[in-house]
Amino acid sequence: MPQAGIPSEQEVLGWFDSLSNWGRWGDDDELGTPNLITPEKTRSALATVEEGYCVSLSREITWDPTPDVPAPPVHYMVESGEGWATGDKVSSRKSAVAMDYIGMIFHGVSVTHVDSLAHFFWNGKTYNGKPAHMVSTNLGATVCSVDAAQRGFMTRGVLVDVPFVRGIDWVERGEGVMPDDILAAEERCGFRIEAGDVLLIRTGQLHRRGVEGPVTREAGSTACQAACLPLFKERDIAVLGSDTGNDVSPPQYGGQLTNPVHQVSITAMGLWILDNANLEDVAQECRQRNRWTFLVSINPLRLHNTTGSPVNPIAVF
Amino acid sequence: MPQAGIPSEQEVLGWFDSLSNWGRWGDDDELGTPNLITPEKTRSALATVEEGYCVSLSREITWDPTPDVPAPPVHYMVESGEGWATGDKVSSRKSAVAMDYIGMIFHGVSVTHVDSLAHFFWNGKTYNGKPAHMVSTNLGATVCSVDAAQRGFMTRGVLVDVPFVRGIDWVERGEGVMPDDILAAEERCGFRIEAGDVLLIRTGQLHRRGVEGPVTREAGSTACQAACLPLFKERDIAVLGSDTGNDVSPPQYGGQLTNPVHQVSITAMGLWILDNANLEDVAQECRQRNRWTFLVSINPLRLHNTTGSPVNPIAVF
Amino acid sequence: MPQAGIPSEQEVLGWFDSLSNWGRWGDDDELGTPNLITPEKTRSALATVEEGYCVSLSREITWDPTPDVPAPPVHYMVESGEGWATGDKVSSRKSAVAMDYIGMIFHGVSVTHVDSLAHFFWNGKTYNGKPAHMVSTNLGATVCSVDAAQRGFMTRGVLVDVPFVRGIDWVERGEGVMPDDILAAEERCGFRIEAGDVLLIRTGQLHRRGVEGPVTREAGSTACQAACLPLFKERDIAVLGSDTGNDVSPPQYGGQLTNPVHQVSITAMGLWILDNANLEDVAQECRQRNRWTFLVSINPLRLHNTTGSPVNPIAVF
Amino acid sequence: MPQAGIPSEQEVLGWFDSLSNWGRWGDDDELGTPNLITPEKTRSALATVEEGYCVSLSREITWDPTPDVPAPPVHYMVESGEGWATGDKVSSRKSAVAMDYIGMIFHGVSVTHVDSLAHFFWNGKTYNGKPAHMVSTNLGATVCSVDAAQRGFMTRGVLVDVPFVRGIDWVERGEGVMPDDILAAEERCGFRIEAGDVLLIRTGQLHRRGVEGPVTREAGSTACQAACLPLFKERDIAVLGSDTGNDVSPPQYGGQLTNPVHQVSITAMGLWILDNANLEDVAQECRQRNRWTFLVSINPLRLHNTTGSPVNPIAVF
Repeated sequence: MPQAGIPSEQEVLGWFDSLSNWGRWGDDDELGTPNLITPEKTRSALATVEEGYCVSLSREITWDPTPDVPAPPVHYMVESGEGWATGDKVSSRKSAVAMDYIGMIFHGVSVTHVDSLAHFFWNGKTYNGKPAHMVSTNLGATVCSVDAAQRGFMTRGVLVDVPFVRGIDWVERGEGVMPDDILAAEERCGFRIEAGDVLLIRTGQLHRRGVEGPVTREAGSTACQAACLPLFKERDIAVLGSDTGNDVSPPQYGGQLTNPVHQVSITAMGLWILDNANLEDVAQECRQRNRWTFLVSINPLRLHNTTGSPVNPIAVF
Repeated sequence: MPQAGIPSEQEVLGWFDSLSNWGRWGDDDELGTPNLITPEKTRSALATVEEGYCVSLSREITWDPTPDVPAPPVHYMVESGEGWATGDKVSSRKSAVAMDYIGMIFHGVSVTHVDSLAHFFWNGKTYNGKPAHMVSTNLGATVCSVDAAQRGFMTRGVLVDVPFVRGIDWVERGEGVMPDDILAAEERCGFRIEAGDVLLIRTGQLHRRGVEGPVTREAGSTACQAACLPLFKERDIAVLGSDTGNDVSPPQYGGQLTNPVHQVSITAMGLWILDNANLEDVAQECRQRNRWTFLVSINPLRLHNTTGSPVNPIAVF
Repeated sequence: MPQAGIPSEQEVLGWFDSLSNWGRWGDDDELGTPNLITPEKTRSALATVEEGYCVSLSREITWDPTPDVPAPPVHYMVESGEGWATGDKVSSRKSAVAMDYIGMIFHGVSVTHVDSLAHFFWNGKTYNGKPAHMVSTNLGATVCSVDAAQRGFMTRGVLVDVPFVRGIDWVERGEGVMPDDILAAEERCGFRIEAGDVLLIRTGQLHRRGVEGPVTREAGSTACQAACLPLFKERDIAVLGSDTGNDVSPPQYGGQLTNPVHQVSITAMGLWILDNANLEDVAQECRQRNRWTFLVSINPLRLHNTTGSPVNPIAVF
Repeated sequence: MPQAGIPSEQEVLGWFDSLSNWGRWGDDDELGTPNLITPEKTRSALATVEEGYCVSLSREITWDPTPDVPAPPVHYMVESGEGWATGDKVSSRKSAVAMDYIGMIFHGVSVTHVDSLAHFFWNGKTYNGKPAHMVSTNLGATVCSVDAAQRGFMTRGVLVDVPFVRGIDWVERGEGVMPDDILAAEERCGFRIEAGDVLLIRTGQLHRRGVEGPVTREAGSTACQAACLPLFKERDIAVLGSDTGNDVSPPQYGGQLTNPVHQVSITAMGLWILDNANLEDVAQECRQRNRWTFLVSINPLRLHNTTGSPVNPIAVF
C-alpha cells in the first residue's frame, strides 16, 4: 500500500516535463547536473575542510551470495601466492606475483555505484532526448556513458540523517523520505542544500541490515519518495545518494513508474544517482562533530560506453 | 642490454633489507607508505588548490583487443535500451533500464590501477613479512588486500615530466628514468618531493602510443630504473605512479629480479604503485601553468581480498 | 550421524592402496578407467540398440540462483535479436545475428558434468602419482586434464534405479546406496555390471527436488556410500554417474575424508565421475521397457588444462 | 572479388522462400532439420559401425589470444592443487580439490560449436517465422534455443574431403566449395548424401593453419558457397559442418547478405550448422579406410535460452 500523502501518479508524470533540464547545458550535453559542479563550487567545497580526516562512503565489495544479493560480483585469482615459497610452482610468470579477475553487475542493491544517464529511459528516451536504442546490446552506452563524468565529482557533500532527525532507528521498508524530512534536517542541523551539492540521504537501512541480517528484495526497501523530486530541482543538487537503491519498494505507483526517483532524475533532470552508499561511518563522524557538510570526492571509473561505475566516495572533514 | 650506469644486482638485492619499512607502522600493518598521508598532509594538499579545476589521470577502459592489450576487460549488457521504444521487448524488467556486466584483470599494462601490497612477493613473503600463501587461490588476498586503502589517497601529487625536463619526445623503451632526472625536475620546476606525496613520473610512452600506435609487450617499455628506489625511500613518498607499467622492460637484471621497482617497493617498502596512468592531460595543465604540484584524489574500490583496484585518479589545480 | 553398517574410516583409507589402478595403463596414463572402453566394448554397446530412441541424461543449465545453487552459471547476450526488425540498431555487426557469452563453475551440485582425474587429491597427489601442484592456479590442470577424454565415452550404460528396486520414492538425504542395492538391482532387473560400463545410480533426489522444491546444501544429500567402492573396482566400471553430487552429505567420516567416493575413485582408481545427471527420463524409459541397459554417449568438451567438463550424455535404446 | 560462376544475389534471395521449411514440422517447431534424424535413421547409422573406433571432431578449446582468435575463451581456477601437499593452504574447502571457471563466446571462428536456429535473422525473423526480438538481451533465446536439440544428433556423418577429391592442399581463402565438389566426392568416394545426414565439408583450412600459422580474420576464409544450398535442401541433410566458419569471406554478395549459408540455412531451412570442426583426424581415418561415412554423435549442452553450444562431436568407425 502506498504511503499516505504522496503525490498522485499524474503529478509525478507531469514532472518529466516540468522538472526537465533538457537543453539547459546544450543539446549535445550528456553530463547533466554535474555541470553544476563548477571550479568555484569545487574550490568552496575544499575550503570547508578543517581536519583532513577521510571516511569511505562505500560498502565493501564481497563475493558470496546473501539473501539480498543473490548474484554478487565474482573474484577469481589468475595467479596466487601459493607455491612461491616452496618452489612447487607451475606458472607462466617468472616472478612471484598474484593477480585477480574481478567481474560484476554493479547495478542492483549491493555495490556502491553511480548511475550514468544511460541507465533508465522514459518514453523511449533518456536525458536530453537521446534515444534508448543508442544504449545498444552490442556496443553499450553509445550516449550518456559514465565516461562523461571522467573528471569526477569533487564538491560539497550534505548528509540528511533521517533517523537522527526523526529520533528513530531506521525508516521502515515500504515507506519513504519526504521533503519535510529534508527541510527538517536543514533546520535542525543548520545547513542549506545548494546548487552542485551531493545530497546524501541516510535511511538507516544498512544499519538495520547489520542488526537484523539481510532480507530478500521482496521484503521491500526505503528511499526518498518521488515527492522529493521538485526539491532536488529547486536546490539544483548535482548528485543524489543514499544508503539504499534510491527508490521506495514495493513501488508506490502503477504501470511503468516503478522507480520514479530514478526515472525522473535520470531521464528528465539529468541528475546522477549514487546507490547503496555506506553512510554509517560518515553519520558517526557528523554526529560527533554536529557537522553535516563536508568535501566529497566521487571518481567514477572511465568505463567506455557503460551505464555507471562502482565507486568509493570519500568524505573529508 | 641493460642501461649503462644502473646499480648492480647485488646492490638492488641489498635494498630489500636496507629500504625496508617492515615494522615501521606496527607488525600488523597492511597499509605501508600511505600511512604517511596524515590528516595534516591531506589538509596541506587541499590548501594548494587555487582554481578548483579537475583533470583525470586515468586512461579510458576499453573492450577491444589491441597489440599491447591482447586480453582486455570485458563488457556485456545484461539489458539494453533496444526495443523499449517500440514495445517489442521480452524482459524480466518492468521498466525501461539498461545494465552492464564488466569484468577485468586490471593488473597488466592497460588499465589504470593501484597495486595493493599483496601483488608481489620476495622470498615467499610480502610487506611486513606476510607469507605469500596467505594470498590464496580460493580466498584471495587474505592479507594486504586493497581494502586497506579504503579511505583513499587524498594528498599532494607531484609531476616529474621527464620529456619536458630532458627536451625530448619520450624516454626510449628499454631505458629508464634515473634519480638525476627526478632531481633535475625538482630544480627546473621548483618543487621538492616530500613525505606522503604521490610521485608521478611521465615517460611520454602513452603519448608515443598515440603518435606511433600500439606495440606488443615484447617491444619493451620504460619506467623508473631500480636506481630510483633509495630516493623514493629517502623522500618517503606514499605512492609511485607513471604512465607505464612502472618497470623497465626487458628486465635489466637476471633471475627473479624481473620487476625490481615493484618487488622492492611493494614487498620491502610497502610502497603503493599506480600503473598505467594517463599523464597527458595533467602534463598539459602543468606546462600551461608552470606548476607541477596539485591535489590528487585516488579512491581504490573496496574490493574484498583483492590485490589492487582500477582507479580514476583526479588531479585538482 | 553416519549410516549404520558402513565401513570404518580405516577400511576406506586402506582402499587408496588396495583399489589403486596406478601403473595399470602405464606410468604416463592420465585417462584411467575409460581405458576399459575398448573398440570392442563400444561395438558391443552399439549392438544393443534396438530402436534408435535417444534420451538426454542432462539437466538443463539455467541462470537463476536457487536455494541449492547460489552461484549458477551466467549467460550474457553480446548481441540480441532486438532492433533488427525496426532498424533502430547500433551494432558492430553488418548482419542480423544474436550471440551469447556463457560462463560457469561446472563443479558443484547443479550442472551435469564429468570430473577429470585432476579434480581431487589425496596426500598431495592424484591418479598415477601426479603431484597436486601440477594443477596450478595460473595454467590449470597441466596433468590429468579433461582433454584426456577427447574421444568421448561411447559404451554401455546401466541404470540402477534404487527407488524402483527398494519400492520407495527416494533415498533419504544423509543416507546412501549400499553394494547390496546394486546387487539387488542386478538380480531384480536382469543385468550384470561389466568392465567398461557407465554405471548410473538413481537415488530419486532430482525427482524429490521436483516434488518438494530445492533445499540448501546444508540439508544434505545422498549418493553411493564409500562401501560401494570395492564393487566398482571388482566390476571395472569406466564411469560412475548419479543424479546427485556422488557423495553422501553430511560426510560420514572425519578429517579430510569428506568425499570418499570422489577421493578414492579419482585419485586411486582413476575412475571418472558423472555428477548431477538427470536420470528421470531415462528411468521412465527403462521402466516402460523393463530394460536397464542402453548405449550411452558422453562427449566431454576438449577444454585445455581443465578439471572436467559440462556434458549432455545421451542414452540410446 | 566474388568467385566466378556463383549464383546471383537475386537467386540467393529467392531461396529464402523456395528452400524454406517453415511449417514442415508444424507451426510451433523450433528444431528444424534435425527432425530428419528419426529413430530409424539413428539405428541405420549405428549399424554402419564396424570397429568401434572413435575420433573427436573438435578442436581443443584454448585460452590464449592468437591472430585469428583475439578474444578467446577464459579459464580461471577457483581452487588449485597448489599448497595441498605442504599444508600452507588457506581455503574454504576442507578437502583437497581443484575447480575451474570457464567462460566463452562460442560463436566466431575458433570454438567447435553448433548454431541453434536463434543465431541469425532475416527480415526480422528466424526459422518458422519466429520474431527476432524474441531472442532478447535480458532473457536470451526465448525461441529456438539450443535446448531444442537436447536429445543430441546421433546419425550418419559423411565427409566430403575437398582437397582429397581435388588433389590440392587446401581450398583458397576467398573461394568456396561448389555443388560439383560435393557431387564429385560422392562419385569418387562411393557414397550418397541422404536425409538426416550430418554433412561435413573439409576445406583444409585448419590444416593450412597448422602449416602456415594463424592469420587475421581480414585474410578471409573458405567454406561452401551459397550455391550449395539447393543441394542441401534436395538431399535433406540434418546438419552442415565444416572445418571453417561455414561462409566464404570476404562476403561474395552485397548488403546484408554477408553470410548466405548461415542466413538461408538457419532462417529459411531450419538447418543446423556445425562451425570450426576439426576434420583433420577423421579425414586421416577416412583416407586409410577409403571409407567416408561413419556414425557421428553430437551432443549440444542443454543451455537454457542460448543460441548454440560448444560441442565435441565424435565419429565412430
